[in-house]
Amino acid sequence: VSILYYSAGDPEGRLLAKLRELLPAETILAWPERGDPAAITQAIVWLPPDDFFDGLDNLTHVLSIAAGVDNLLLHPGLSPSLPIVRLQDAGMGEKMAEYVLYGTLHAHRQMPDLLLAQRERRWAREVRTRSAAKFNVGILGAGAIGRVVAERLHANGYAVSCWSRSPKEVPGVTCYAGEAALNDFLNPLQVIVCMLPLTDATRGILNKRLFSALPVGAYVINPGRGAHLVENDLLDALDQGQLSGALLDVFATEPLPAEHAFWNHERIMITPHLAAPSPVRQSAEQIATSLRCIARNETPPGLVDRDQGY
Amino acid sequence: VSILYYSAGDPEGRLLAKLRELLPAETILAWPERGDPAAITQAIVWLPPDDFFDGLDNLTHVLSIAAGVDNLLLHPGLSPSLPIVRLQDAGMGEKMAEYVLYGTLHAHRQMPDLLLAQRERRWAREVRTRSAAKFNVGILGAGAIGRVVAERLHANGYAVSCWSRSPKEVPGVTCYAGEAALNDFLNPLQVIVCMLPLTDATRGILNKRLFSALPVGAYVINPGRGAHLVENDLLDALDQGQLSGALLDVFATEPLPAEHAFWNHERIMITPHLAAPSPVRQSAEQIATSLRCIARNETPPGLVDRDQGY
Repeated sequence: VSILYYSAGDPEGRLLAKLRELLPAETILAWPERGDPAAITQAIVWLPPDDFFDGLDNLTHVLSIAAGVDNLLLHPGLSPSLPIVRLQDAGMGEKMAEYVLYGTLHAHRQMPDLLLAQRERRWAREVRTRSAAKFNVGILGAGAIGRVVAERLHANGYAVSCWSRSPKEVPGVTCYAGEAALNDFLNPLQVIVCMLPLTDATRGILNKRLFSALPVGAYVINPGRGAHLVENDLLDALDQGQLSGALLDVFATEPLPAEHAFWNHERIMITPHLAAPSPVRQSAEQIATSLRCIARNETPPGLVDRDQGY
Repeated sequence: VSILYYSAGDPEGRLLAKLRELLPAETILAWPERGDPAAITQAIVWLPPDDFFDGLDNLTHVLSIAAGVDNLLLHPGLSPSLPIVRLQDAGMGEKMAEYVLYGTLHAHRQMPDLLLAQRERRWAREVRTRSAAKFNVGILGAGAIGRVVAERLHANGYAVSCWSRSPKEVPGVTCYAGEAALNDFLNPLQVIVCMLPLTDATRGILNKRLFSALPVGAYVINPGRGAHLVENDLLDALDQGQLSGALLDVFATEPLPAEHAFWNHERIMITPHLAAPSPVRQSAEQIATSLRCIARNETPPGLVDRDQGY
C-alpha cells in the first residue's frame, strides 16, 4: 500500500521530506507519480488538481495540509463519503496571534489616522488612544487557532470576546454563541477579527449588515477566507466612515488582481495570504500522528464534520 | 506657603484639578498667578516659560511632570543647585510597551516591505518571517520604562536584550552595560529601540556608526528624544538599505516641520510625540507622594542626579 502526496505550496518538497523522515515504513509517492492507484490508501493534499482523485478507489482518508478545508470540500473529484482530516493548530496559532495583535495595535494606536496625517505632513497631536482594557476586540470563531489569538490579545490587556456557532469557553474571554447573540457581540467592538471556517453559513458574513452593527470607526481584520468578506460592502463602509480601516490577508481572488480597488485604498493594508503559514515540522508531525491513528483504526483528531463544513 | 503649577500640556487643567483633589491642604497656584513668590516652596512643571523661576527664591524642589528632564535641565532660570524630581513610570510604561510592540511586530512581520509591495500592487508571497524567538530586539536604556517595554516584548516571545550605562538585571532579558559592550549588544539585532534619557553622553547616539554595527535590514524605533537621532544618518542608512525602516515619535524640531524629508519617506512611520503620554491620575498620585516625602524631609523617588543628567 502507499500514500499519495500533493501540495500547491511546497515547491522545495520540505514537507514531503519531513513526512518521509517521520514515516520511514510508509511509501509516500509524490503526484504525478502514483504507482498502482488501487494501492493508494491515503492522500495528503493542499489544493490538489481536478484529476487528482481519479482512480484512487481504495482511499480511506484524505489528510489536508491546512486547517481550512473549504477548497477541498468543493473539489470535483472528491467522493462525498470520504473522511477528511484537517490540521488543528500546528503552530499557525502563534503566527496568527502575531498578525491579529499587529492589526489590533495598529487600530488601537490610531495608526490609520496617523498614517493619513503623515501623508498630509500634519502633526496630529489631537489623536487620543484609549487604554487597552477599554479597547474591545471581537473574534468571529473560537476554534483551535481563534483561541490562541484570543488568549494572546487578552495577555496584552485587551478586552476580548469571541463568537461561535456552538458555546465555547476561553479563560478571560467573553464568549457569545449563536445567531441571536451576534448583535450583542458586535455592538461594543473597536476591532472585529474573522477566524471562522468558510462554510455556507459563514460565506459573506463580513457584510454591510454586520459593519453597521459595529460602532462608528471600527476596524476589520480578515485572516480567514476571502469569501467571508463582501468586498464592495467593505469599500462602502470605509468610504462612509463607518469603518476606520482594514487589514486583509485573504481575498475573493488570489493573487489579488492588479486592478483591484483594495490595492491603493488609503485605509486598507494588504498582506499576501501569509498571516499564518502551516509550519513544516509541526504540520508533518500532526499528519504523521493522524496516519498512525488511522492505521490503528482510531479516529484521528481533526476529522471534518461534512455537515458543519469543518 | 504654596506650590506653583505650570504645564504646557494640560490645557483643560485636568492634572491641576487632580493634584488639588489629592492635596486638599496645599495651596496650588496656577501660573501666571503666583501670590507672594517668596511663599512658593515647590514648583510642578512641564516646559515652563523662561521667566517662570524669577523671584522664586525659596523653592526647595522642582517636580517634573515628565520622566525626561533634559529640557528642564537646560532652562535658563533654573538654579543649578535646586533638586529636581522626575516622574518614574506613572503608567507611561504600559503605553510605551504597546508602541514598541507595535513597531516590533511591524518590522518582524515585514510590513515595511509588504506596504511597499502594496503600493506597487504586487502580491509579495516570497516574503518570509522568522519565529519571534529568533527575532532579536534590543533596547537602549533599562530604566523604569525601558524595563516594562522589555518585559512586554519578552512575554510576546521575542529575544530581548538591553543596554545601559550601569549593569541592570531584567528577568528573561540579556543585559549589556557600558560602552565596551555596545557592539556585542548591537550585532545580532533586527530591531533597535531607544529609551535612553537625553544627556551629553546619549545625544546623537543613533548615528551612522551605530547603524553600521547592526545587521543589514535592521529597523529603528525611537520614542526617546529627537536629539538621540542624527537625522541625516538615518536617511542615508535607509537609502543605502542598511536599515529597512523606522518608527519615530520624537524629532529634533517638534512639531516636525512640514518641509522635513521624513514626512514622505516610504520607509519612515511618524507619530506626533504621543507614544507614551503621562496619564493624569497616576502622574498626580506620584507627584503627591513626592510632595509628602519632601514635607517629611525624606528623599522623594525620582530625585535627579544632575551629573548623570537623569
